[in-house]
Amino acid sequence: MKSEKISDAVVRRLPVYLRFLNELSFREVSTVSSQELGQKLDLNPAQIRKDLAYFGDFGRKGIGYDVAYLIEKIRQILNLDQQINVALVGAGNLGQALSNYNTYLKDNMKIVAVFDASEKKVGQKINSLTVQPIEDLGATVKRFNIRIGIITVPDFEAQRVADQLIDAGIEAILNFAPTILKVPAEVRLHAADFTTDLLSLAYYLGDGKEALTNES
Amino acid sequence: MKSEKISDAVVRRLPVYLRFLNELSFREVSTVSSQELGQKLDLNPAQIRKDLAYFGDFGRKGIGYDVAYLIEKIRQILNLDQQINVALVGAGNLGQALSNYNTYLKDNMKIVAVFDASEKKVGQKINSLTVQPIEDLGATVKRFNIRIGIITVPDFEAQRVADQLIDAGIEAILNFAPTILKVPAEVRLHAADFTTDLLSLAYYLGDGKEALTNES
Repeated sequence: MKSEKISDAVVRRLPVYLRFLNELSFREVSTVSSQELGQKLDLNPAQIRKDLAYFGDFGRKGIGYDVAYLIEKIRQILNLDQQINVALVGAGNLGQALSNYNTYLKDNMKIVAVFDASEKKVGQKINSLTVQPIEDLGATVKRFNIRIGIITVPDFEAQRVADQLIDAGIEAILNFAPTILKVPAEVRLHAADFTTDLLSLAYYLGDGKEALTNES
Repeated sequence: MKSEKISDAVVRRLPVYLRFLNELSFREVSTVSSQELGQKLDLNPAQIRKDLAYFGDFGRKGIGYDVAYLIEKIRQILNLDQQINVALVGAGNLGQALSNYNTYLKDNMKIVAVFDASEKKVGQKINSLTVQPIEDLGATVKRFNIRIGIITVPDFEAQRVADQLIDAGIEAILNFAPTILKVPAEVRLHAADFTTDLLSLAYYLGDGKEALTNES
């Protein structure tokens, strides 16, 4: 289906476009210009036109992009024109928080199973999902055709859980544990480590001198 | 201090380098090659040499990089050679999960205050922090010289919280609410929206046909 490989940076922006386009569609807005998209998403309009040109030439000069068509196209490109099932391993605070986001995952992606190694957690209800023992991972992944795994266990357990997910046939992993995982080349791994986000923010702070003198 | 502007992509990789270098330092490894770094971090060694060359020429041919020196240098570049205080707004599951990560934030960055708008949450202890009423935000930010804010409230409250953080004098925001925020140009905003990470993972899945036929 895919005509050419799209850069990772563009792939990461597509869900952001999709969210805003869904918002527009909900408000019954039918066309949008690259200027509007750029303003809302804090991107250069030229960058947006370049990103969207990857998928064929949708935009019409002076009219803009057809919202419904762009939504359909981006969903296709992201493989979201099919139902994609997700498993979450680690039913702690973070796992519970993430399973709440199911509401936002309207685009045919859904967390359908939650696992934990602790007997205390197994059997508990998180939203509408019952926490399953980690031993059931393989069978459940097969039964529900689960293709993506989310890791929300402590760092020292993360590699073992990754191995278990891969053994179970998972194709892609989103890792929230603050550690670097090794996975085979055919498994796609994204790190969602918030400490990295936070530490990189510090770069954009001033040198602190103004802030300190404000105190006097 | 900064000689030239470093690209956002490089800034985002620096904390990843830093984590691995800290690991090496802990294990008393004193030098590392770009090959080793590349293998561990799943990056091209040439890319690593290019990234690190931004900060002067540390590497010595055949010996590699001095771990301690590289740590010091990256911390300087990221402004982590000073204590940076962080406030978290939203003491739900996600907020609680993130405050646990304080353990990992060894690099002079620390969540020092947690806020919530709900009377039920105020006064509760999360790790060693007592949840404060959102009305105290301004005074606490000033008192502890807090410079970064983390938003972990529901999407419909996120913009209001962002405005409150900015009024309080925050310089940078990490937003976990799945919505697009507007902030003034002088405030740095990173979106840590995990639904975007998750949806973009779908792009890297196969077309699902193999997975489906496996079931038969």
